[in-house]
Amino acid sequence: MHYAKPLARLVGELEKLPGIGPKSAQRLAFYLLRIPADEARQLAEAILEVKERIGACQVCFNFTDQPICDICRNDRRDKTLLCVVAEPRDLLAMERTNEFTGRYHVLGGVISPMDRVGPEMLRIRELMERIQHDQVKEVILATNPTVEGDITALYLTPLIKPFGARVSKIAFGLPMGGDLDYADQATLIQALEGRRQL
Amino acid sequence: MHYAKPLARLVGELEKLPGIGPKSAQRLAFYLLRIPADEARQLAEAILEVKERIGACQVCFNFTDQPICDICRNDRRDKTLLCVVAEPRDLLAMERTNEFTGRYHVLGGVISPMDRVGPEMLRIRELMERIQHDQVKEVILATNPTVEGDITALYLTPLIKPFGARVSKIAFGLPMGGDLDYADQATLIQALEGRRQL
Repeated sequence: MHYAKPLARLVGELEKLPGIGPKSAQRLAFYLLRIPADEARQLAEAILEVKERIGACQVCFNFTDQPICDICRNDRRDKTLLCVVAEPRDLLAMERTNEFTGRYHVLGGVISPMDRVGPEMLRIRELMERIQHDQVKEVILATNPTVEGDITALYLTPLIKPFGARVSKIAFGLPMGGDLDYADQATLIQALEGRRQL
Repeated sequence: MHYAKPLARLVGELEKLPGIGPKSAQRLAFYLLRIPADEARQLAEAILEVKERIGACQVCFNFTDQPICDICRNDRRDKTLLCVVAEPRDLLAMERTNEFTGRYHVLGGVISPMDRVGPEMLRIRELMERIQHDQVKEVILATNPTVEGDITALYLTPLIKPFGARVSKIAFGLPMGGDLDYADQATLIQALEGRRQL
């Protein structure tokens, strides 16, 4: 026995989503069947709308429904301080701190030989143009603490320095509320290397 | 800083789904932004199509895109053996066993005073009509092993018996591959009570 065809199709589409297995896909499909048609339509329309109206900011490549995003249009954000991230979600994570007053540059990924992502596929040329044009004083590299993130940071550093900008990297170490006993070795090594004098 | 409006809307809609928290909703939204517009549209259309074309089977109330579902139209399925379930997803779980050759009746829920679901809100009248009309010989109650499922089974039993049908309940006990040591007390009590002589 199989699902009725439209139901099978929906379950199939839901299964393609990241983190959604066959079981969750079925549960979501049945949920969508149960709720009023109006509510389900709102979800469908939101998906269509987002594909229609959201694009990349022409300056920093963050997601935006404008040609240039809110942050890049905000004159109170320091354009000489650039935070370089891999993806828009990383930008959002940084913004949630409410601590960063500069602007961003979204690379659109990280260098990853395994996934055949070379530097030419990232927005590095655009980054260099911004650094030059806006006379950027400091570039903070905020790629993830992974091999690929580190490679990307290492690749960018010698490219940025000739423009006279300082290059820094966000600190890696024990997470707040973390437990030494549960920390992995790599994190502890980072925490040791990055120790600060009190 | 906030999401661009269409993105905020999509994240909001995704968060309404069961088991999808703010973090997952954001991840799904970013995924949908990243994939080709065509693929996202397929998901949106599948949602719309399911709401348009899927309804309840006129006989058993399973989901179907026909007036009467595949199982109810299948003459090789014994109509004198009825399995009563709360929801279509329970029917699917039973079907996956490939063991059950009878037909189903979907109640559309269980009696739950806490959620103000009374017996009059379930398809009990329709069940009785089928039992009488099809001269059903056995009704297998396959509601979940919960308080509400048990109440519903207890409520149905005396209603069904006068029609001359046998009433049975699926067995509750230790799940296959389970571990006595990890089983909760209620399950162990069920397993003990339901013990079978070898």
